[in-house]
Amino acid sequence: MKVHLITVGDEILIGQIIDTNSSWMARQLNLAGAHITGIRSVGDQEGNIEQALEEALNQADVVLMTGGLGPTKDDITKKTLAQFFGVGLEFHQPTYDRILRFFEHLGRSTTPAHRQQCYMPTNATLLLNKMGTAPGMWFEQDGKVIVSMPGVPYEMEYIMEHEVIPRLKRFFPGSPIAHRTILTVGEGESKIAERMESLEEELPPHIKLAYLPNLGQVRLRLTGSQADGDALEQELDFYAQKIREQLGALVFGMGTDRLEASIGRMLEEQGKMLVTAESCTGGYLAHLITSVPGSSNYFKGSIIAYSNEVKMKQLNVKPQTLETYGAVSEQTVAEMTRGAIGLLDADVAIAISGIAGPGGGSPDKPVGTIWLAVGNREKVLTRRIYAGKDRLKNIEYSSVHALNFVRQFLLQEQEAKIS
Amino acid sequence: MKVHLITVGDEILIGQIIDTNSSWMARQLNLAGAHITGIRSVGDQEGNIEQALEEALNQADVVLMTGGLGPTKDDITKKTLAQFFGVGLEFHQPTYDRILRFFEHLGRSTTPAHRQQCYMPTNATLLLNKMGTAPGMWFEQDGKVIVSMPGVPYEMEYIMEHEVIPRLKRFFPGSPIAHRTILTVGEGESKIAERMESLEEELPPHIKLAYLPNLGQVRLRLTGSQADGDALEQELDFYAQKIREQLGALVFGMGTDRLEASIGRMLEEQGKMLVTAESCTGGYLAHLITSVPGSSNYFKGSIIAYSNEVKMKQLNVKPQTLETYGAVSEQTVAEMTRGAIGLLDADVAIAISGIAGPGGGSPDKPVGTIWLAVGNREKVLTRRIYAGKDRLKNIEYSSVHALNFVRQFLLQEQEAKIS
Repeated sequence: MKVHLITVGDEILIGQIIDTNSSWMARQLNLAGAHITGIRSVGDQEGNIEQALEEALNQADVVLMTGGLGPTKDDITKKTLAQFFGVGLEFHQPTYDRILRFFEHLGRSTTPAHRQQCYMPTNATLLLNKMGTAPGMWFEQDGKVIVSMPGVPYEMEYIMEHEVIPRLKRFFPGSPIAHRTILTVGEGESKIAERMESLEEELPPHIKLAYLPNLGQVRLRLTGSQADGDALEQELDFYAQKIREQLGALVFGMGTDRLEASIGRMLEEQGKMLVTAESCTGGYLAHLITSVPGSSNYFKGSIIAYSNEVKMKQLNVKPQTLETYGAVSEQTVAEMTRGAIGLLDADVAIAISGIAGPGGGSPDKPVGTIWLAVGNREKVLTRRIYAGKDRLKNIEYSSVHALNFVRQFLLQEQEAKIS
Repeated sequence: MKVHLITVGDEILIGQIIDTNSSWMARQLNLAGAHITGIRSVGDQEGNIEQALEEALNQADVVLMTGGLGPTKDDITKKTLAQFFGVGLEFHQPTYDRILRFFEHLGRSTTPAHRQQCYMPTNATLLLNKMGTAPGMWFEQDGKVIVSMPGVPYEMEYIMEHEVIPRLKRFFPGSPIAHRTILTVGEGESKIAERMESLEEELPPHIKLAYLPNLGQVRLRLTGSQADGDALEQELDFYAQKIREQLGALVFGMGTDRLEASIGRMLEEQGKMLVTAESCTGGYLAHLITSVPGSSNYFKGSIIAYSNEVKMKQLNVKPQTLETYGAVSEQTVAEMTRGAIGLLDADVAIAISGIAGPGGGSPDKPVGTIWLAVGNREKVLTRRIYAGKDRLKNIEYSSVHALNFVRQFLLQEQEAKIS
């Protein structure tokens, strides 16, 4: 199945926003066995959209469009599509009822523009959008498929996952492509590739291995294609298992698992409650942990000690520790860990203090210097890492490191209990 | 001057990297008065590149291509261009000398592929690339311009700034384009559009208005093009000011400002220290605040009270409040606010407690029910909002709402002080 992507919106052409939708869609479609023949962005003008659509249909079986479906008048995708197919627009009462319920639920009132939004091309199959007011639209013509979705990322993602990809798979049943993704944390891409060398040579030609690094985590994706689906699934399981054995404790999960969820499971198994004490990450670490549904089962809370005053008063960090070693030091994070355990009556605590930047660096402790400590009532382990120069990346990177530090600590505890 | 951008590279079509080059180029070109008629990404195949080039030349005076100029064998842009123009490739000694010097400087040796890289289409004007080995190439044909640049962002940026944009300005001395972006929070796109109706009708035909919504925030973008640059800037300022007046306190900033930064400035001006007390947002609100460099000047820290125990012990929420009204209630967030101010000795506190989902909802308090409280030592204001069903979106949406609640509180304080 050949797919072409079109993003509609002047905001992309003036460089005000980066088109992240296309890259997300390309990833999902590749996983579904599609081949992307091109990606293009066009402005909110009728002629442009129509021309892009025609050109795209010459190069693909499926054209997926995002953007231009909102209630304001700069959104003209729908009108253009109706013209393109030579059909009219028709008021769709169920969509209007959904919008009314949606706004009632929000305690807000609708406007005439929302009514306007419910006029749909008569040949469209509407795709449910649980995340917003504008439904997606599915069109079929001459054996080809054209889909139009809103440009808001989470609305597009919802419609893609729940409607578009399942429908495309039914519409274009192709030769099976299957994937296994092995999730690792704690080593860089090249170090992992080194350890995988001999295993990579063993792979049959119809199974490919790709490394997908991101902020301290590397995903290893096996992609296999073969006529006989069943054998392929078994083969992929076999090699995935070999990779897991080869990489040992670097592997924290499979597929779409998340590091923070895997830690949650370990905590639940061990019957332990976690807390965090954060300075430079400013709550991002707690956010990652609590982004997992049900995290209240193993996460009690956090002290964000952005000021030294909070470090001293709430976390019991000694004034002389801060004076002698500074807020970004092994001693401070160790005391933060002990303080958090005592204050919040927790089993495990992770503390983090560093220089996120852009200011605050020194020759001794440059921007990106981060101290971590993890511990329980008996012991505290510490570690220093160096992140980069970008504030937000430093916050994210050091939070992932902190999660992995907790994971390693829990693995140790588990082993100690078994032996 | 109409410009079309083409990015070459399979890595974009499989979603492995996001095309940030195009957005950077679009911004620079818009500032230089260009109108971008489209952006497209194509794979590393000859036919694709040639087709994209032909289609692009139909829609623009200038086509800028990036990618496909490196020494490895999947890079075929140069060969395709020579074929497209019907010319041959010629060895370019000065470029080879530069590469030799470059590698000598790095203390590394060149490979045969680097010699190969120095064959250039005979009709190309070479553009100096101080950041790497592959020069840019400038072609002119039938009054149109085609430029090919390497895809490495800092190499492309160097060639754009030093060569392409100055040359384009000389080649197409044209009419300027300018923008103003007005940032709002607290109302949806359609409500804002309603309030803007008469103002929109006043806009002259050469000034367009677009609405760009995202999670509780809406950006309004004015785009103007006109022969007389000076008058255009003044006109845009005039209408931007009118929009600001029309939308009043919904506007928190202009351009690339951020809500969390605007609150930071207000806190600094008022000499106040902020803290947060978070339940359902689990640290995300504190993360937004601390994502701003220098936020330690006005942010002390936070208590993430994910468990009721932390709400009671640290934030002094009364057990009977939790029993009678529940953790997601007006009474609880009010007590959390007072507790946070007292505990962390702050001037302003914002508290948030809600049902992020997917579990924990009830007919009485469905998933997405969020209570907010903001206050100081004298008073506490509360507000209930309804977000959606998606856990992560609820966390983000309610955090933006909380930031806006703080902003409104600080605005009130400011006014009270003035009057």
